[in-house]
Amino acid sequence: MSSNTDESIYPHASGEAAKTVQIHSNKNELVFYSGWFCPFVQRTWLALEEKQLAYEYREVNPYKKEKEFLDINPLGLVPALVYRGKALYESLILNEFLEDEFTYSKSLLPKDSFERARIRLWIDHLVKRFTPAFYRLMQAQEEDKQKEALNELVDALKKYLDQIKGPWFSGEEFSLADVTIAPFIVRMYILEEYRGFTDELVGQRWIEYKQRVKERPSVIRTTSDSERLTEIYQRYLRNETQSEVGKAIRAGKSLP
Amino acid sequence: MSSNTDESIYPHASGEAAKTVQIHSNKNELVFYSGWFCPFVQRTWLALEEKQLAYEYREVNPYKKEKEFLDINPLGLVPALVYRGKALYESLILNEFLEDEFTYSKSLLPKDSFERARIRLWIDHLVKRFTPAFYRLMQAQEEDKQKEALNELVDALKKYLDQIKGPWFSGEEFSLADVTIAPFIVRMYILEEYRGFTDELVGQRWIEYKQRVKERPSVIRTTSDSERLTEIYQRYLRNETQSEVGKAIRAGKSLP
Repeated sequence: MSSNTDESIYPHASGEAAKTVQIHSNKNELVFYSGWFCPFVQRTWLALEEKQLAYEYREVNPYKKEKEFLDINPLGLVPALVYRGKALYESLILNEFLEDEFTYSKSLLPKDSFERARIRLWIDHLVKRFTPAFYRLMQAQEEDKQKEALNELVDALKKYLDQIKGPWFSGEEFSLADVTIAPFIVRMYILEEYRGFTDELVGQRWIEYKQRVKERPSVIRTTSDSERLTEIYQRYLRNETQSEVGKAIRAGKSLP
Repeated sequence: MSSNTDESIYPHASGEAAKTVQIHSNKNELVFYSGWFCPFVQRTWLALEEKQLAYEYREVNPYKKEKEFLDINPLGLVPALVYRGKALYESLILNEFLEDEFTYSKSLLPKDSFERARIRLWIDHLVKRFTPAFYRLMQAQEEDKQKEALNELVDALKKYLDQIKGPWFSGEEFSLADVTIAPFIVRMYILEEYRGFTDELVGQRWIEYKQRVKERPSVIRTTSDSERLTEIYQRYLRNETQSEVGKAIRAGKSLP
């Protein structure tokens, strides 16, 4: 395996996340197929942890596309869940599934229909505006492209923050909106170090929200050491990653 | 107003759809902001009709971006709903809202959590693979681009059809998956007339499913005369539309 390929990534979670993996190493009827480094994975991992569900953690290298995993998700993407032998994938759909199935656990969507819709609307904003801007900024090589992506990112963040009731998106309760942005908040330091992003571009409200998210126990419990994360993103910063997300951004297409 | 701009579209529903508009012309606490020609609008219109809800139909020309409507949806896109004075938008989120709020009406999602997730997964497939291919094929001007988009479209349809339990996507009950594809099935005749699409490219299962969808009363009740629809799509077929969807496809970006 060449060190240039994405297959050679560090093979498992580290730091606080490694402890969580250890706790969830026993067999369970709910199996969580994860890639420790992946922000989309972390969305579902956060939901599992917030809801304090029993689950079995299994590490997959999604770049390897092994047959066993392709049988679970034909797209070869993490996260995936197998529950009582049946497979599902797509982080946001998995989170809705966990809400629907484990009704005895803590809810990440309120009962009020309008507020549920408002949360889904702003998750949609994060998916369509914020996340693509995040990757475009990371992968942009020319200064003008970086500037354009940085503006998009800051604009998307400001619009989201305008909708926050506080302290969390939906008020007192942590919800799927916070879950959806949290993994990217964890990784924002990379854009600060390499792409000139600063908290001041967004404002005081962002600084407070960001800090709150980073201190959330479920976020800490699902985050690996930052040195390991920084390693992962070197290929994105050079625009050389072979991840499906990276390739889509490079081709100017929508995210998979 | 020039006849070249999208603002000059035929101003209201016709045929069976006009009768439905007439039935829903009275004031109601649930207001449906529609554009009679828009397939994304029809997704929510179908849900309203399937659930037999009382609602007030209001025609909006989304190309005009009138202030009153921008206050409801800052993105200026139909469909939108105002319920008891509060506004929401995005067709798929509106459909989930109708499910959540009007629990006494006919359900378009099953109770089983896994099946709900499976439906959402294949709606996601329609959104990410089928719909963009549909617009790319319509707007493609060069023969090789048309061929490429046609292959994508056929492939996306086949994958969806492989997942249908029959007679509807989820079995005996019409669901949000059928609702999501139905407006495009209604418009497929345009791709047959202008872009060489044939039912035989997809197969017998498609022919049966397509026919079933077209004969569904809610589909008939929300569909305008085909001559009027064909008019609308002339600008797409010449790749001259100024719709947000059309501009996104032209720029190689993801759908708004």
